[in-house]
Amino acid sequence: MFEGPVQRLIDELARLPGVGRKTAQRLAFHLLTVDEADAKRLSAAIADMRDQIGQCRRCFNVAAADECAICRDVKRDERLVCVVERPQDIVVVERTQEFRGRYHVLGGSLSPINGVGPDQLRMAELKGRVEAESLSEIIVATNPTIEGDATAMYIAREFKPLGVRVSRLASGLPVGGDLDYADELTLGRALAGRMEL
Amino acid sequence: MFEGPVQRLIDELARLPGVGRKTAQRLAFHLLTVDEADAKRLSAAIADMRDQIGQCRRCFNVAAADECAICRDVKRDERLVCVVERPQDIVVVERTQEFRGRYHVLGGSLSPINGVGPDQLRMAELKGRVEAESLSEIIVATNPTIEGDATAMYIAREFKPLGVRVSRLASGLPVGGDLDYADELTLGRALAGRMEL
Repeated sequence: MFEGPVQRLIDELARLPGVGRKTAQRLAFHLLTVDEADAKRLSAAIADMRDQIGQCRRCFNVAAADECAICRDVKRDERLVCVVERPQDIVVVERTQEFRGRYHVLGGSLSPINGVGPDQLRMAELKGRVEAESLSEIIVATNPTIEGDATAMYIAREFKPLGVRVSRLASGLPVGGDLDYADELTLGRALAGRMEL
Repeated sequence: MFEGPVQRLIDELARLPGVGRKTAQRLAFHLLTVDEADAKRLSAAIADMRDQIGQCRRCFNVAAADECAICRDVKRDERLVCVVERPQDIVVVERTQEFRGRYHVLGGSLSPINGVGPDQLRMAELKGRVEAESLSEIIVATNPTIEGDATAMYIAREFKPLGVRVSRLASGLPVGGDLDYADELTLGRALAGRMEL
């Protein structure tokens, strides 16, 4: 329907998550009408990122060098590791400015129904770090889902016998939220995890 | 917050219409984790489109050559022209398969409040075509909005004295809507029932 190069771009854009045909079309025509420099900069940014970004060989965060900026930071507590599912979760934890250790990216969470067992995640690499870096504590920051919970349980069972402390982010009421709007599961968790004042 | 090349891609993605920081981040990490070939293909599709696509010198549609595929089609009625605001509107009209003439892309609609007068649109070029191509009828397919209506009125006033018939897509399109979201049947009806101005 569209000229070849336009159609090809629409097809590529429509492969992005959450982008349908209509949005892909709108984006393509936007990229056709903005300054050529703007469009070329987006094109280059995609290619450059793939050329320049790899995985941190220690924690599997995204990294522009052998190790990511966090692992290279000597002011970090290297015996404390926060375990996350995906690299982008690191940014969310960093924003709290409350965590001064390093990270470990699992690459997902345990989900037998989807064929994801411990071997599909970076559990062996985590075990290697427990020993090589004499970790004192692992904080599991997987999502508060069934899969995330199962992953946390697995890590506790596997690594506590190695002499490392294993903790999990607290589940409970979101700060600034309204008790009225909390679902039963969250409220149940908040109750079970209540803290003495 | 992110490694340089990742942050640069997020920034570029966030400049796209309808893409916020959160979506830009999600898309960037998607492009980081898919096959490198997939990411590179999107990058190339953007650059290629800008390199290969220009404007049709006759109707200002997008074109991979001097003239667009529609203007080059000798089976088209060359004395009948459908005036649209944007190149992507052509595809919507084409889908009805009810129109066998050529097009003219105005580049927008009259909007004094936004500083868009006849000189900001391709009215002079349309006038040139009325004479050079001895047009018999102009069908105005601007959006059914105040600006689109004003544009249609302007074209009727300017071009009818030159001896060309000027018509407008019939109402049947939801008023205040966008041409882009019309279904083929509604648009086909509107085309068949166009009213002379």
